[in-house]
Amino acid sequence: MIIIGERINGMFQDIAKAIREKDGSVVQEWAKKQEQNGARYLDVNVGPGSTEPVETMKWLVEETQKASDLPLCLDSTNYDAIEAGLKICKQPAMINSVPAEAAKMERVFTLACEHGSEVICLAMSEEGIPKDSESRVALAMELVATADGYGVPIDNLYIDPLVLPCNVAQDHGPEVLETLRQVKLISDPPPKTVVGLSNASQGTKDRELVNRIFAVMAMANGLDAAIADACDDELMAAVATARILLNIDIYCDSYVDVFKQA
Amino acid sequence: MIIIGERINGMFQDIAKAIREKDGSVVQEWAKKQEQNGARYLDVNVGPGSTEPVETMKWLVEETQKASDLPLCLDSTNYDAIEAGLKICKQPAMINSVPAEAAKMERVFTLACEHGSEVICLAMSEEGIPKDSESRVALAMELVATADGYGVPIDNLYIDPLVLPCNVAQDHGPEVLETLRQVKLISDPPPKTVVGLSNASQGTKDRELVNRIFAVMAMANGLDAAIADACDDELMAAVATARILLNIDIYCDSYVDVFKQA
Repeated sequence: MIIIGERINGMFQDIAKAIREKDGSVVQEWAKKQEQNGARYLDVNVGPGSTEPVETMKWLVEETQKASDLPLCLDSTNYDAIEAGLKICKQPAMINSVPAEAAKMERVFTLACEHGSEVICLAMSEEGIPKDSESRVALAMELVATADGYGVPIDNLYIDPLVLPCNVAQDHGPEVLETLRQVKLISDPPPKTVVGLSNASQGTKDRELVNRIFAVMAMANGLDAAIADACDDELMAAVATARILLNIDIYCDSYVDVFKQA
Repeated sequence: MIIIGERINGMFQDIAKAIREKDGSVVQEWAKKQEQNGARYLDVNVGPGSTEPVETMKWLVEETQKASDLPLCLDSTNYDAIEAGLKICKQPAMINSVPAEAAKMERVFTLACEHGSEVICLAMSEEGIPKDSESRVALAMELVATADGYGVPIDNLYIDPLVLPCNVAQDHGPEVLETLRQVKLISDPPPKTVVGLSNASQGTKDRELVNRIFAVMAMANGLDAAIADACDDELMAAVATARILLNIDIYCDSYVDVFKQA
């Protein structure tokens, strides 16, 4: 599983303040810290309630790219902001995200073709997030088929089964794990899979414990990537260990350190 | 997943010393400690190279039962020792273990019928431990079918796919996880599953990390029980969290504490 660092997001107070004050050093610092700790992509999100989402996305992309060469994951429901960001990304980025809704798929998959982007596809529609894995997988199939129709390579697709907090939607947990497994049977090659890990633990008492246990269980069901806190050392150690036990990386006594530097 | 406490085992120096000196207090203390920390069974093993395995097993069973009412898991390759232990167990015990070898299955399944015991069945034969999951599952099927022939209820069977240390047999890891999943398809109701958790981490640098990550990955593939260190608090927290995320136990903020007391 690869980590998409979640920290450059206007929902965090220090990033919101950096955006208001146009203080790029805070953004650059988080870019470097996350990369050093093992992130392989950096998520960039202007945060909720932004009055200038397009300009802010451009500024965040520029500042992030000053400090890191990692590919970016442009995270917004405002597709003008996504498009503005894609135009200045130095290398192909990930678009985060598109649900199974016709108009949104048209916009996003067209952008993805123009820019060679990867796309996070959400297992939800106008009707919301279904509970059972069968309905989630059906939405994933719709997203994959539609993307294919627009010419987006399946290798560039990440299906997000949508994780909900375990203290309010506990019965979704096993359905999400089953969806991760079933999605790998949709096509050959199959799409990749991703989750927004921190959603699992919202409102729980020991968030980091819940996050890392869910991450490892999801990896055991085929999870390829997670938007997560790359600076959570225990999470990174858990992920490195799971990669060893799944025989993805070769065991050595210092495998946790090697994972961060790889 | 339920925890079978591994600590009353002559391979540990304090237990070996207690056996030599007939000091029951050490055994009783471990029985209590493991129960208090959330163990649901107590494994009892005389240790390697015992000169009096039958008498030692009887003594360990007696001492353990003075301190705890938990069911025991009699752990020996010496079936005379197992039989002697079964005769003095106050409640039905678990026999640990039998491989897919005709003579051993006859002895163990006959004992299990006489005493109403559960049985840990090892996915190995005279030829050793196979690597691929298909061969492990085939041995599991042979064990289940043979047990059924002797009249042992399938509910009383635990299949152990046999975990090997990840630093010497890393490619076995994914096969073990797949075996756990496939074993659930053998019959309806399916047999239960169990692993000797600490085997996964033998010789690795951070054994507790490897143990708890493997436990959680195995749970996500249907593991029912593990012979493990019930006094490893981080393991117990990981298991409690996995049970929440699998929707086995109901979430509350103190779920880790509740798991130990349940």
